[in-house]
Amino acid sequence: MTDEQFHEISPSEFFYRNLQLVGFTSPSKSLYIVVKELVENSLDACELHLIKPSILISLKQVEKAGDTTFIYRLLVKDNGSGIPKRHVLNALGKVFYGSKFVLRQSRGTFGLGGTLSLLYAQLTSNRPINVVTSTGDREILKYTFYIDVTNNQPRLISFERYKNRNGWRGTILDVHLEGNYSRARRYILEYLERIAMITPYAEITFVEPSGEILRFHRLFDAPFKPPRKILPHPYGIDIETLRRLISNAKECTLVDFMCKSFHRVGEKIAKRFLKFANLQPNVKVKQLSDEDVEKLYKALKSYDGFLPPNPDVLSPIGAEVLKDGIAKKYNPEYIDVLMRPPSSYSGHPFIVEGGVAYGGGLPGEGGKIALLRYANKVPLIFDEGADVVTKVLNSIDMSIYRLPADKPVVLITHIASTKVPYKTLGKEAVADVPEVEREFELLIRRLLRRLTKHVKRVEKRIAKIKRLKFFEKHLSLISEFSSRIVDRQKPDISRLLEKIKAKYYLA
Amino acid sequence: MTDEQFHEISPSEFFYRNLQLVGFTSPSKSLYIVVKELVENSLDACELHLIKPSILISLKQVEKAGDTTFIYRLLVKDNGSGIPKRHVLNALGKVFYGSKFVLRQSRGTFGLGGTLSLLYAQLTSNRPINVVTSTGDREILKYTFYIDVTNNQPRLISFERYKNRNGWRGTILDVHLEGNYSRARRYILEYLERIAMITPYAEITFVEPSGEILRFHRLFDAPFKPPRKILPHPYGIDIETLRRLISNAKECTLVDFMCKSFHRVGEKIAKRFLKFANLQPNVKVKQLSDEDVEKLYKALKSYDGFLPPNPDVLSPIGAEVLKDGIAKKYNPEYIDVLMRPPSSYSGHPFIVEGGVAYGGGLPGEGGKIALLRYANKVPLIFDEGADVVTKVLNSIDMSIYRLPADKPVVLITHIASTKVPYKTLGKEAVADVPEVEREFELLIRRLLRRLTKHVKRVEKRIAKIKRLKFFEKHLSLISEFSSRIVDRQKPDISRLLEKIKAKYYLA
Repeated sequence: MTDEQFHEISPSEFFYRNLQLVGFTSPSKSLYIVVKELVENSLDACELHLIKPSILISLKQVEKAGDTTFIYRLLVKDNGSGIPKRHVLNALGKVFYGSKFVLRQSRGTFGLGGTLSLLYAQLTSNRPINVVTSTGDREILKYTFYIDVTNNQPRLISFERYKNRNGWRGTILDVHLEGNYSRARRYILEYLERIAMITPYAEITFVEPSGEILRFHRLFDAPFKPPRKILPHPYGIDIETLRRLISNAKECTLVDFMCKSFHRVGEKIAKRFLKFANLQPNVKVKQLSDEDVEKLYKALKSYDGFLPPNPDVLSPIGAEVLKDGIAKKYNPEYIDVLMRPPSSYSGHPFIVEGGVAYGGGLPGEGGKIALLRYANKVPLIFDEGADVVTKVLNSIDMSIYRLPADKPVVLITHIASTKVPYKTLGKEAVADVPEVEREFELLIRRLLRRLTKHVKRVEKRIAKIKRLKFFEKHLSLISEFSSRIVDRQKPDISRLLEKIKAKYYLA
Repeated sequence: MTDEQFHEISPSEFFYRNLQLVGFTSPSKSLYIVVKELVENSLDACELHLIKPSILISLKQVEKAGDTTFIYRLLVKDNGSGIPKRHVLNALGKVFYGSKFVLRQSRGTFGLGGTLSLLYAQLTSNRPINVVTSTGDREILKYTFYIDVTNNQPRLISFERYKNRNGWRGTILDVHLEGNYSRARRYILEYLERIAMITPYAEITFVEPSGEILRFHRLFDAPFKPPRKILPHPYGIDIETLRRLISNAKECTLVDFMCKSFHRVGEKIAKRFLKFANLQPNVKVKQLSDEDVEKLYKALKSYDGFLPPNPDVLSPIGAEVLKDGIAKKYNPEYIDVLMRPPSSYSGHPFIVEGGVAYGGGLPGEGGKIALLRYANKVPLIFDEGADVVTKVLNSIDMSIYRLPADKPVVLITHIASTKVPYKTLGKEAVADVPEVEREFELLIRRLLRRLTKHVKRVEKRIAKIKRLKFFEKHLSLISEFSSRIVDRQKPDISRLLEKIKAKYYLA
C-alpha cells in the first residue's frame, strides 16, 4: 500500500496557493495587476451597459511593509451598472461566480481577476475588503467582508444601507494591499495611457500616492457600440457543448433545434445541413440515439456551408479610432490601419485589426519594430515573448520588406473575440491557435507590404529631389560656362528646369 | 436595474471552457501535452515511492478526424505505486482532487494536468476513459468512466476486478484522443530524450504509430533519492497560512507551536524568535488575541535568525548526473556544471543548478547560446520567451564574456523546488520571482565567467602553439642562413627550441 494522501481543495484554495498563475509574482507586478483588474471590471461594468466610463483611481501609501514595499490603500470608483444586491458578496468574494461565463466580448474573461485581486489584497494587508455599490435604485449598499479561502465563501463583517438621494449608480472598491509603487508606476501609467489611446470615450483620473492627479482624457468623442452575447457557432463545437444544447432542447424538432441553438443558422441552412448529415429534420431531439448524436457531431465538424460568425456582436477598436488614437498620441509621419474580415476558431468569432506607424513622436530604435499588443481593448504589457504576434513576427522573413532605416516603427495589433484564447490567467499573452495565428500573419504581412511600398515611394521621391537639385545646380553652371565661352549672355533655364521637374514628378 | 446574469460554475467546467490555459491550443500541441502529463504522473508515481520507473507508451492511429488530424489510441503503463481503490475515480475524474496539494517537489504541481488531459481526450474522441491499476495487493482494478463536466464528478460506466496473481503493481491509462502526430512527433521525442538525459535511472519505451519502437534507456545507473514533504518555512509565510497553522494547534504553547509548525525551527530558535517578537513562549496558542497574531505575523516577516530551508527535502539532478547526461548525449569538448546553494521564496525552498557545454556533438549555431530549461526534472520545451531564464540571459551584457566563436554553446538550467513558480498551468515557463531570478543570474554569470576563462585559456594555448611553430620554422631557417654566411656547419637548434617550448608552456 501507498501512504499517499489524496484530498480535495476548493477553487479559491487552489488559486490562493497559486497566485503566481494570475501574475502575482512580485509586489510591484501585483500592485499593477490589482489596479488593472479593477479598472477592467469598471470599464466592463460601464460599456456592457452603454455607459460612457468615468473612472477614478486613488492610491495612497499607508505604512511600511517589507524592505522595499508598503501597504497602500487603493480605491477604484466607476459610474457603471452597479452590482445587484443578491450578487454583491458572491461576485466579489467567491471564485468561479460571476457574469463573465457567457459568449460575449469583454475585458474580463475568466471571471477570476477581480476576486483574486481582492484575495491578494486581503492576504498581504490582513484587512477586510470594502465595497459600495448601487444599481441606481433607491439604495446604496456598503459591505465589509473577508474571503474565506478554505470554503470559497465571502465572510461578511458589516453591512450598511444608505438612501440614494441623487440616483447615484456605480461601484467603489476600497482595499489595502502590499506593493511597490515606485517600481509599478511605469507599468500602471503605460497601461492607463494605452487604454486612453484606444478608448476615447472613457475618462480616467488617477491620483498618485504623491498626490499628483493624472487625467487620461477623452481624446475625442467617438460613438461606441457595446459587444453582444451570442449563441455558439456550429463550426468547431465540441461534443460536450453539443450534448448540453441537446439536453436543453429535448422537445424541439431537429431543424428548430439547429436554428435556436446556433449562431447564424436559419431554417434554410439548417435543412441543407441536416440533409448533408443524413438526419430527419422533423424528428424530435429527444428521440436521437447515441449514434445519431455522434453522426450530428461529425457532420457539424465537416459541413462547410455554415455562414461565418457575425462580426456585429464584436466591438473592435475600429480603423478611425485606432488611427486617431495613434495620431493624437504620437503624431507620426506615417500611419496605416487595417481590419481583417471576421474569422472564428472553435466556434468563437474573432477579428484582428492593427496599424503600423513610423517617425514623428514615436518611441524606439530606427529600423526596428516595437510592438503594442491589445486584446479585447486591453493593452497587453507583459509576456510579449510568449504572444502569438511575436511568434508571427519572428516567423516573417523581414528582408523582403523595407523599413525606414533610421526611424522607429511601431506595430499595433488588436484581437476582439467573444473568447480571446489567452495563454495565462494573467491575460498577458494570446495563444497560438492556428486560426488566430493565420489572421495575424495576414494582417501583419499586408501592413508590411503597404509600408514597404510607401517607404520605397518616399525613397524614390528623395532620390528625385536630389537629382533635381543636381540638375538645378549643374544646368545653371553649364549654361553660365557655355555662354561665357561663346561670349553670349546666360540664357534663362528656368523653363527647362520646369519641364524636367514636371517630367520627374509625373513619372 | 441591470440584466446582467450571474452564476457559479464548477472547477471542471471552468477548465473545460479554458483548456488553452493548460496548453491545449492545437491538435499537435494537445497530443504532446497529454503524453507529457501522463508520463509525468507515471514518473511521480514511481519516484515518490522509491521505485525505478519503467514506462511504456504506445500510440496508435485509429481513424481520420479532421482535415489534418486523426483519432489516436494512447496507452501509458507504469510500474508505479498504483492508485488506492477509494481514490481512483476521484483522482482521475475530478478537478482539484489529488495528492499533489502538499509541499513536496514533484513533476505534477497543480494536480490538474492528468485529469484535464483525460478530459481533452474524452471531448475530442467522444469515448470513455479506461484505467487499470493495482497497488500490488490481491486485486487489479479496471474502471471505464466519463468525466461529468457540469458537476465535476466521474461517471462510472463499468468496473471489473481481477485476481492479482503475480503481484503486479502500477497503472495503465488507455484513452482515445484527437491529435496530429506528424507535427507533434518532434516535440514528443525531444521531451522523452531530454527526460532520459537527466533521469538515468528511468527506462521509457515508446511505440510510435508507425510501429517503430524507441527505447530511452537507463544511460547509466545512478542512485536516486526521492523528494520529501516539508513543513512551511517561516520566512515568507502569509497571514492565511499562519491562521490555519494556529487553528490546527490551539492547545500547544507558543514555543511548541513554532517547533511543530515550521520547517527547521527548534526550541532554541523558537525562543529567540519569540523574544524578538515580544510574545510569551508559554502562552497557549488559543489564548492569542487578534493583535498577538498580527504581531506574530509581522515578526515572522522581519526576523532574520531562521535557518535557511533544508535542501535535503529536494531532489536536484546533481552535478554528476547532469555532467554524465550531457556527455553521453552530446559528447561536447567542454562541460562545466554548477549547483547554487539552496535558497527560498515565500517559504518554499529551491535550488538552481545548471551547466554549460560547447563543441563536439552539440546542436546549434556558433557563438550563440541555445537554452535547455528544466524544472523539477521535467524539460520545458515551449514558451522559452516567457521564462525567467530568458529574462536573465537578455539582461546580461554578453560582451564582457567570451564565447567560442565558431562552436555552438548550450546552457542547461534546472530549478528544483517544493513549489516551482510556474507562470502557466501548462507548466512551460517559470515566473520571474525576484529570489529565483537572482539565483539564476548568479548561476549563469558564474558559468559564463568560467567559460570565458576556459575559452581564453584555449585561445592562448592556440596562440602559443602558432608562435612555437613560427619559431621552429624561422629559427631553423635563420640558423641555416647564418651558418652558410660564415661558412660553418648548421648548429643543432633542438635544445634551444626545447628551452623556448618549456618557457612558453610554463608561462
